[in-house]
Amino acid sequence: MQSFSGLVEQFESRFTHTLPFPSQPANLYEPCRYLLGLGGKRIRPVLCVMAAELFDAPTDDAWHAAAAIELFHNFTLIHDDIMDKAPLRRGQPTLHHKYGLTAGILCGDVMCIYAYEQLAQVKRSLPQIMQLFNKTAIEVCEGQQMDMDFETRSDVSIEEYITMITLKTSVLLACSLKIGALTGGALGDNARRLYEFGRNMGIAFQLQDDYLDAFADAAKLGKQNGGDIRANKKTYLLLKAQENANAAQREQINNLLAQDASDEKVRQMLELYRATGADAACRQAVAGYSDLAFTHLNEVAIPSSRKQPLLELAQYLLVRDK
Amino acid sequence: MQSFSGLVEQFESRFTHTLPFPSQPANLYEPCRYLLGLGGKRIRPVLCVMAAELFDAPTDDAWHAAAAIELFHNFTLIHDDIMDKAPLRRGQPTLHHKYGLTAGILCGDVMCIYAYEQLAQVKRSLPQIMQLFNKTAIEVCEGQQMDMDFETRSDVSIEEYITMITLKTSVLLACSLKIGALTGGALGDNARRLYEFGRNMGIAFQLQDDYLDAFADAAKLGKQNGGDIRANKKTYLLLKAQENANAAQREQINNLLAQDASDEKVRQMLELYRATGADAACRQAVAGYSDLAFTHLNEVAIPSSRKQPLLELAQYLLVRDK
Repeated sequence: MQSFSGLVEQFESRFTHTLPFPSQPANLYEPCRYLLGLGGKRIRPVLCVMAAELFDAPTDDAWHAAAAIELFHNFTLIHDDIMDKAPLRRGQPTLHHKYGLTAGILCGDVMCIYAYEQLAQVKRSLPQIMQLFNKTAIEVCEGQQMDMDFETRSDVSIEEYITMITLKTSVLLACSLKIGALTGGALGDNARRLYEFGRNMGIAFQLQDDYLDAFADAAKLGKQNGGDIRANKKTYLLLKAQENANAAQREQINNLLAQDASDEKVRQMLELYRATGADAACRQAVAGYSDLAFTHLNEVAIPSSRKQPLLELAQYLLVRDK
Repeated sequence: MQSFSGLVEQFESRFTHTLPFPSQPANLYEPCRYLLGLGGKRIRPVLCVMAAELFDAPTDDAWHAAAAIELFHNFTLIHDDIMDKAPLRRGQPTLHHKYGLTAGILCGDVMCIYAYEQLAQVKRSLPQIMQLFNKTAIEVCEGQQMDMDFETRSDVSIEEYITMITLKTSVLLACSLKIGALTGGALGDNARRLYEFGRNMGIAFQLQDDYLDAFADAAKLGKQNGGDIRANKKTYLLLKAQENANAAQREQINNLLAQDASDEKVRQMLELYRATGADAACRQAVAGYSDLAFTHLNEVAIPSSRKQPLLELAQYLLVRDK
């Protein structure tokens, strides 16, 4: 069994250092290399390989699937950054900011196709893997659409919010695990359990992200806290606060939403999150989805010792103090 | 053997009238339906089914592959229209013009994924078909990049131009034919011949398009002629005129390129195309690639009577008087 950092290193040397792109046209492939070179934690490909390793030594199939998933993920980042008008990604200029809109669109497109090109090299269970990958890829687009729809809606329910983060974030983590397991020869129930482990872990992770953005120490967060509040972003905390609020609190929330971003706006909103119990509800939801995730992992019918790296990775992701 | 119009009708009822999209999120799928509803000649899917029918009655595999190809083609149209800042497509607002940039990007993305979702349902020869589809899809992106690179370059050679139109346009026609043939059980050499038939037909078609844009009667063209000249677009005609020009003619061409669009600019450039023999060279190139195409079709080892619909479609595409 290999550790997270060991697998990241292996992935970098197998994938990032030997990208499948040719040299020409340079204006197409150089930006692709730039984006993939920005790094990232490589959580999805590592989950894929770890899941394969639960059942057998990871094969070329597992590494091709891991590469496909990382390429797909980066394709979505490129296009999301355009839609979100984001200037920075991992502290560096986003691809479209550095190379222009046209490059942003076309580099994303070709990276998506390279994801499929890698996936098509998988031999074991290819039809089943393709089907899951396609289903997931469609869901990720649908989640992104819901996220953008939410920006202009004022009636988003908690249930819809959970659906959105499930589609936008969780299903790709779940898919990474299940595809990895399938390349390792996992049978139906184990593969399904790993999928559910990833799906619930993803939801817990996103809710924790909402919580940390609001309540974490700015120094530990590595950025100003309250970014979501400043941007009036519909998070679990805001939706729950609106749901729980009495008439006076609801009016206070609406007044704050109408204000420009400021430290004082953040301070007052955090107070309302506490007063309405939204903060506790969010922590509880994180714990609930985490528990569900670990229960599913526990039910995977293989010796616990083999699950140790996955367990540690999930704990690292879910029990951050920053 | 079925006629072009008969197959278009079948494709519409099997595909366009039963699109694979769900109803929600509406902001994602409604624009997709809009774009596919604008029509188009459906040449690629029909080529796919016609190629399958050379060998056997078209199976569900052929129809799924045809749908995949049409979805992929429309995905590229959506994103190309953004990159080209095109307001109109088939006389109607382009998708991004009607629904915005974000919809343009995301609807294109999801349509590309649905192309793969359709393709994954092919049963016969799936790995080989996937490999060709991926290779072609990458080439189409590379062709689009070259086309955009050409806009700001002043040293484009005829050879590079042919490479660009081959990648951007021809390989998808070739791929449609070969994939159709593979779903019909074609063996290596027949499939390869059909690919070459499509590739050469595509080049001839694009060169003919360049010619007609300059020299066709505006009434028959359905739009003002000389659009490429007005936009200083690097076409076969312009590149050939520059190649053949003497010093005085080269200066005249450069002066015209520095001028704003006008009827007079078109008139003078057409005169230079004739004087340099670019017009005759273009007609000759069309004839040369057409001949090559028909030679390859001729070599496909099946009775000529079965090839009749393909032959007629190619003649319809290549011997237009408009």
